[in-house]
Amino acid sequence: MRIANLKGRLVLVEDDTAVDVAEASGGRFPADPQAVFAEWDAFRDWAASQDAASPTPAGTPFAVEDLGPPVPRPSQVFAIGINYAEHAREAGYPPDSAPVTFTKFPSCLAGPDCEVELPSGTVDWEVEAVVAISREAWRVRREDAWDRVAGLTVGQDLSERTSQLAGAKPQFSLAKSFTNFGPTGPWLVTPDIRPGEVLVSELEGVGRITQRFVPAADA
Amino acid sequence: MRIANLKGRLVLVEDDTAVDVAEASGGRFPADPQAVFAEWDAFRDWAASQDAASPTPAGTPFAVEDLGPPVPRPSQVFAIGINYAEHAREAGYPPDSAPVTFTKFPSCLAGPDCEVELPSGTVDWEVEAVVAISREAWRVRREDAWDRVAGLTVGQDLSERTSQLAGAKPQFSLAKSFTNFGPTGPWLVTPDIRPGEVLVSELEGVGRITQRFVPAADA
Repeated sequence: MRIANLKGRLVLVEDDTAVDVAEASGGRFPADPQAVFAEWDAFRDWAASQDAASPTPAGTPFAVEDLGPPVPRPSQVFAIGINYAEHAREAGYPPDSAPVTFTKFPSCLAGPDCEVELPSGTVDWEVEAVVAISREAWRVRREDAWDRVAGLTVGQDLSERTSQLAGAKPQFSLAKSFTNFGPTGPWLVTPDIRPGEVLVSELEGVGRITQRFVPAADA
Repeated sequence: MRIANLKGRLVLVEDDTAVDVAEASGGRFPADPQAVFAEWDAFRDWAASQDAASPTPAGTPFAVEDLGPPVPRPSQVFAIGINYAEHAREAGYPPDSAPVTFTKFPSCLAGPDCEVELPSGTVDWEVEAVVAISREAWRVRREDAWDRVAGLTVGQDLSERTSQLAGAKPQFSLAKSFTNFGPTGPWLVTPDIRPGEVLVSELEGVGRITQRFVPAADA
């Protein structure tokens, strides 16, 4: 299943079309893309039954520039940095350094196709895998982790390096949270999606980055 | 005006009693203490009219241990550290160091009277002034800042220093966000409150800290 935020409404994405969830469910699920995570299991079951048994309502073509962030108002954002040796080396950390956990403040989140006003000439960017957690996850066993995952998407982690490095010690969160410094999307892919699904994250003028997700079945 | 979160419901605190806002407003305002910030100005006007013109409905006595965090689900938490010279010195930062902005993840928020399970023997604590922002505040002029403030309260910033200092560079957010590491309250005081209002933050077995707020009129 792929879900997206189309002009502020939750949609199922099927091929190149969008099915409005509030309409297709007869109001059983709300239009607000954030609200669905409060009843994620019920929504997932409903969506699966749409795929399998019911005739899927006809979708409507849509434009990528009308998509907002698939998770528009997460209650918290855990950003994991320095999480592999090559990146630790590049950032000047010892190779055995513990990963750092910072945040990108939720007000920086944007859809996959947005304009970013650069606050300085030292804006950097990194492509990230984004994991949306559907419900409380505290002291979860490794083998139960996928059970808490609603879906996956791609994000850009934009950083303004001057303010990040201005203090006596580097600080991550604020310098990574200017307006639109957190593009995400285009959609959220549930872990049951077939192997080989590719999400593309593109930065105009910089190049094209592709990122491939391994679904739960193969993890 | 003082507002609080009494067993998950928004209340006005008057003397030692609580007035249920949803009931007193005939349902005009919701019971959810977080929801009121979406229509803060209307709520503030209604509450002021309660004080002035209408007979205030009789309040009910309440126990402090039934209070939750006055802002239970803030969309983001900006924590400002190293923000005065004495603290910079104590923390080993140069006196002219820029303040750091980190977060306490919202899942650590608790009411003013809670038990904290200590994850290690190196838990530290600091009393903080907590400012609740009522609406978008971006590029706000200094003289307009109070206009964005819903109210003030007191918080404890608990920190687990071992994990905070474990990496190559110190990290703030995660080590400050264990369960109940962010007690706040007992209530939110609007900036119009009379001068001399004192909020007390108390840590059992450690001592008593008092903190005085300067209202907007004197700022």
